[in-house]
This record gives sequence, C-alpha cells and structure tokens, in this order.
Amino acid sequence: MIIDCHGHYTTAPSRLQDFRDAQLARLDDPTLPPPQLAQIGQADLRASVEEHQLRLLEERGGDVMIFSPKASGMQHHVADPATAVAWAQASNDLVARVTELYPQNFVGVCQLPQTPDGDLGSSIAELRRTVEELGFVGCNLNPDPSGGRWYGRPLTDEAWFPLYEVMVELDVPAMIHVSSSCNPNFHTLGAHYLNADTSVFMQFVEGDLFGRFPDLRFIIPHGGGAVPYHWGRYQGLATRLGRPPIEEHVMGNVYFDTAVYHRPGIALLTEVVGADNLLFASEMLGAVRGTNPDTGSSWDDTLRYLDAVDLDEVARHKILEDNARRVYPRLSQRIPESVSA
Amino acid sequence: MIIDCHGHYTTAPSRLQDFRDAQLARLDDPTLPPPQLAQIGQADLRASVEEHQLRLLEERGGDVMIFSPKASGMQHHVADPATAVAWAQASNDLVARVTELYPQNFVGVCQLPQTPDGDLGSSIAELRRTVEELGFVGCNLNPDPSGGRWYGRPLTDEAWFPLYEVMVELDVPAMIHVSSSCNPNFHTLGAHYLNADTSVFMQFVEGDLFGRFPDLRFIIPHGGGAVPYHWGRYQGLATRLGRPPIEEHVMGNVYFDTAVYHRPGIALLTEVVGADNLLFASEMLGAVRGTNPDTGSSWDDTLRYLDAVDLDEVARHKILEDNARRVYPRLSQRIPESVSA
Repeated sequence: MIIDCHGHYTTAPSRLQDFRDAQLARLDDPTLPPPQLAQIGQADLRASVEEHQLRLLEERGGDVMIFSPKASGMQHHVADPATAVAWAQASNDLVARVTELYPQNFVGVCQLPQTPDGDLGSSIAELRRTVEELGFVGCNLNPDPSGGRWYGRPLTDEAWFPLYEVMVELDVPAMIHVSSSCNPNFHTLGAHYLNADTSVFMQFVEGDLFGRFPDLRFIIPHGGGAVPYHWGRYQGLATRLGRPPIEEHVMGNVYFDTAVYHRPGIALLTEVVGADNLLFASEMLGAVRGTNPDTGSSWDDTLRYLDAVDLDEVARHKILEDNARRVYPRLSQRIPESVSA
Repeated sequence: MIIDCHGHYTTAPSRLQDFRDAQLARLDDPTLPPPQLAQIGQADLRASVEEHQLRLLEERGGDVMIFSPKASGMQHHVADPATAVAWAQASNDLVARVTELYPQNFVGVCQLPQTPDGDLGSSIAELRRTVEELGFVGCNLNPDPSGGRWYGRPLTDEAWFPLYEVMVELDVPAMIHVSSSCNPNFHTLGAHYLNADTSVFMQFVEGDLFGRFPDLRFIIPHGGGAVPYHWGRYQGLATRLGRPPIEEHVMGNVYFDTAVYHRPGIALLTEVVGADNLLFASEMLGAVRGTNPDTGSSWDDTLRYLDAVDLDEVARHKILEDNARRVYPRLSQRIPESVSA
C-alpha cells in the first residue's frame, strides 16, 4: 500500500472560495450579513477530486492520501478570531465529506483557526472536533500565523504547549505548514514554505521540546526545507551549541516528507536522513504542477524519483506505508493494513 | 591555484569588538565621546590570521581567500547611519591591512554600511572607496538589513538600482549575505543565512533584474541555501509563473558557493548546478567549526567533499579558480594567474 501523507484540497468547488471572499468582504464592511457556505452537491464534490487528486493518485499507483485544506488558503494572517474559526470549520467539513465519499482513499488532516495574536483555544477545540467527530488523524500547524512577518514565538516557546498537550492526548501529529506570504521578500511557494521548514527544524535543534514532550511528533514537509542538503551544517551546529546529536535530540520526533521534485534531491534525502524518518508525499496538487519537459513526467510524481533510488524493500515499505501508520496512529483505524502487507 | 571565495575575518583582534561595543554604548548614551579604534599592531594582526584562516588555508592546499568582515558582526539592523559608516570603514580597513600583509593570500571584499531605513548613498561611497583605494574586488550585500524582520524591499526593487549601477561600473559582484538575526524564530547560522539565500534566489526568479542589468553578478553562498536541493521545484515554479527557464533567466548572473558541509550535499550541488556556476568556498571560520567525529575531518574542509565527487579536470579547475576570476575580474589584477595554470 502507498500512502501519500501530503495532499491538499486545492481543487475544492468554487463555492468554498465564494464563502471566503464573503468573509473577507464582511471584514471590510461589518454591515454585511455573516456569510453562509452555499450548498455543494455530491456531484461537484466528486468531480473536484475524481478529476484531480484521486485520478493522479490512482494513475501513479497510490492508494491513500492524507488530505487537508489548501495550505495557502488558510490565511492565518487575517486577524479576526471568529472569521478564522468559521473558515477552518467550513474548510475541514468539506475535507471530511471527501473522506466520507472515498473512505479507502482519503483521510483528513485539519486546518487550525490560528490567528497572529489569538490564543490557541479555538485551535485546540477545532483539533478535538475534527479528530473526535470527523475522524481526522492530524493537523497542519502554522509556525508563522503572521504570514511572513514572523512576529510570533518559536515553536519551542511554552505558549504553544497547550496545543501540544492535546496533540499528545489525542495521539496525533502536526505537519509544519505556513500559509500564504504577505511579505514581498518571500514568495509563498518558492521561499516562505521552505524557509519555515528550515527555521522550525533549527528551533528544535536550539530548544529541548522533545525532552518536555517525548511523544510529540512533527512532519516537516517539502523534504525538510534546506535541512537534509545542509545536514553536516546542522550536525556541526548542534555540537557548537552544546546540543546532543540531532539524530537523538530531534529525529526521534521529527519526520520529513518526500515532496522534492527531482531525482537528485530524493537521492540525497534518502541517503542522508534514512528510511525511518521519511514519509512518502507528493504535495499534490501543490506548488509545482505540469510536466518536466526533460523527462516527460509530472514534476510532482515523486514516486518516480523514489523508484530511481537504490532502496531495499524494507526501507521502501517504511517510506511508503509503515512510517505513516506509525506517525499517524489513527490512520490504521480508518484504513486497516492490507493482508498482503 | 585554489581560490576560496568566502572567508570572514571572524578572528580579528579584540580591539575591533571593543570599538563596536563603544559605538553601541554611545547609541545608548549620546553624551559619550565618539569612540576611536585603538591601534592594532602588526604582530596582533599577523597572529589573528596566521593561527586561523591562513594556517587552515595552507594546511588544506588552498592559495587565496576572498576575505570580508565577520558577517554576523555587520549588524545592519543598528539604524544610525553614521554609526554604520564608521563601523564599516573600521572593519574594511582592518581587512585591507590583512590583504596588504599577505598580498598573495588575501583579497578584500567589503562590508557595506547599510541600515534598515537609510538610503544607499553611503554604501555606494564605501564600495567605491574600498574598490578604488583599497583594491577590494566585491562587496557583501545584505538583502535584509532589518536583521530577520524582513521589512525592506526585494532585491529586484528599483530602490536597489543605484547600487547595482555602481557595481556594474566598477565590475564587481556582490555576495548575498545577511547578518545576525534579531528574530527569535530564525537562528542566525542555522536558519536566517539559508533563508536569505533561498528567498533572494526566488526574488530573481520572480523578477527580471538581469534583463535590466545584464552585467550584474551575485554569489549566493552556503551552496545556494535550499535551492539546489529543490532544483526541480524552481524549474517547475518558473514555468508556472510564466518565467523563462531559470538556467537562462537567473543562472547567467548568479553563482553558488560550495560552503556545504557534507559530501552528499556537494555531490548534489555539482550534479544539479554544474561547474560553470560554482565557486569554491569554505566560509571559514564561519558557522560550523570543529571536527566531524565520523570522519575525523573538519566540517568546513569543503575541499575534501569536492575531492570525493566525480569531477573532470576542467570542471574542477572552473570551481577552484577560473570562475572566481571570471566573477571577480579585479581579482586577477591582485593575483595573476600562475604560469602553470
């Protein structure tokens, strides 16, 4: 079985964006009525994934996608807490409907209603709701709800601890994932996402979060940002900072996905990090769409790159299925292991 | 000949830091007198490099280091323009003395007196002074003088153009290099440096700076941040954004250094980017010091990683010498090509 741990609902029916637009309009003009998400029929919902994520998943030999709302659409920089809650609920409810329609193929991960200056109470409530009522298996956690201004606190700060306590209680991990950048220095897909991945890893090196929360688990997407390419730098920095080796200090709790869009990157990732800390992912339909003219294959068909790398069967099985079941334990309640596995 | 394009004077005699401390004290208490840099004798100056950069350069078989003030010490976030000018002048003058003492081994690159909100007039003046009077061959340009707050403009913004015009006139390149981070989300060495490298590359992809300045040249250090590891992502994003291929649109004017501290990273870099766009560098004494216990070699002995990669002689010669002479044309006025080359 092949589990893709990083898929986004970037193809949701347009009524979802209409709802968002009405939310933002009401923030500009509070005399407008609170918007309602217009009804989305089953046919539209089916078409939105059958023509996109589900088709590609099946064409490429995949089985299951861990599925969350569009990352750039979370827009946690919009500061109004009630707006954030309604937006996260609508987005997560639509993902839940997809998981109900295709229970063999899609498993939900939630958007949290974070805001730059708000507390985490509503995020904790939405995490509980989506896990306990909708059967979700994790959350996307934004380390910079300010949207590229980065004026909040590192993920090692105790302000985040109430959320971590509930993550541990529910036994769900978080994928580190920023949303759209409001900073013209940082292109959302080509800089902000990768910078966040890199920055958070280094926060974990500097701090001792996993001494405090030994059961907390994070997935750092996009192949870990810059980290695996600079693995020697991080090993050396950990020593210089008087930290234990990163393999002990961080990598017991942190996993990288394989959303890296060329073979040499995947080759480096699998060589340097090792199979125990890697989860297969495509990020589809995400940052990079279309076909590499040099290979004739889709940029985000990351299985091809893994197939081109020398991996034994045990390592391959860990990356494609076992690690996802270990990091997201609730996944196996939704999708039992196949008999052949 | 082996030219290391990225060395910092991190070992300057302590009187330089005393001067800086007195500058900062005076910003807190303007009744203090303007500080003077205490005299630094030739013996102290010699010891400061002979025991460090020069010793390591020679031990490792290197010949020339392109040498600039300590990057984290530039502290462009300190907003007072006069303080920035005096600090850059003092730092550059000390580098110049090293280049005069060891004209076969050290060539200068200047610190610019940037400030978060100041104009570029003083930076242009200091670039002219160091190039025309001190024989320097380039500058370090900070794309985020706010020190991790990133509230300035991308490097493609026309606010930067007056500096670029003088760089082209003087035929000198800039290495992209931020200074210390004031943002607790970004560790200076483990996040801010790499994020800046990544962000600026993407700014170049988004913009058309080299259409406007076809002779402008930048070195992106630390192996290009996250970029080579995500080369497929950038190729795909360029297409999605309607930009020409990055090989044409960016890589005619942008070079990566080899300050990547493990063999797999250097192997990826040389495979993906190709020899024409790479300059040998160690960043010593920089972010990562000490010895890798698994290999018994220094982390920053990057020549070992290059030696372990399959490169033909032409490619090797480009990376170790030819490209540095091409990107920094004034270098050959200081250090002629050896007869054997």
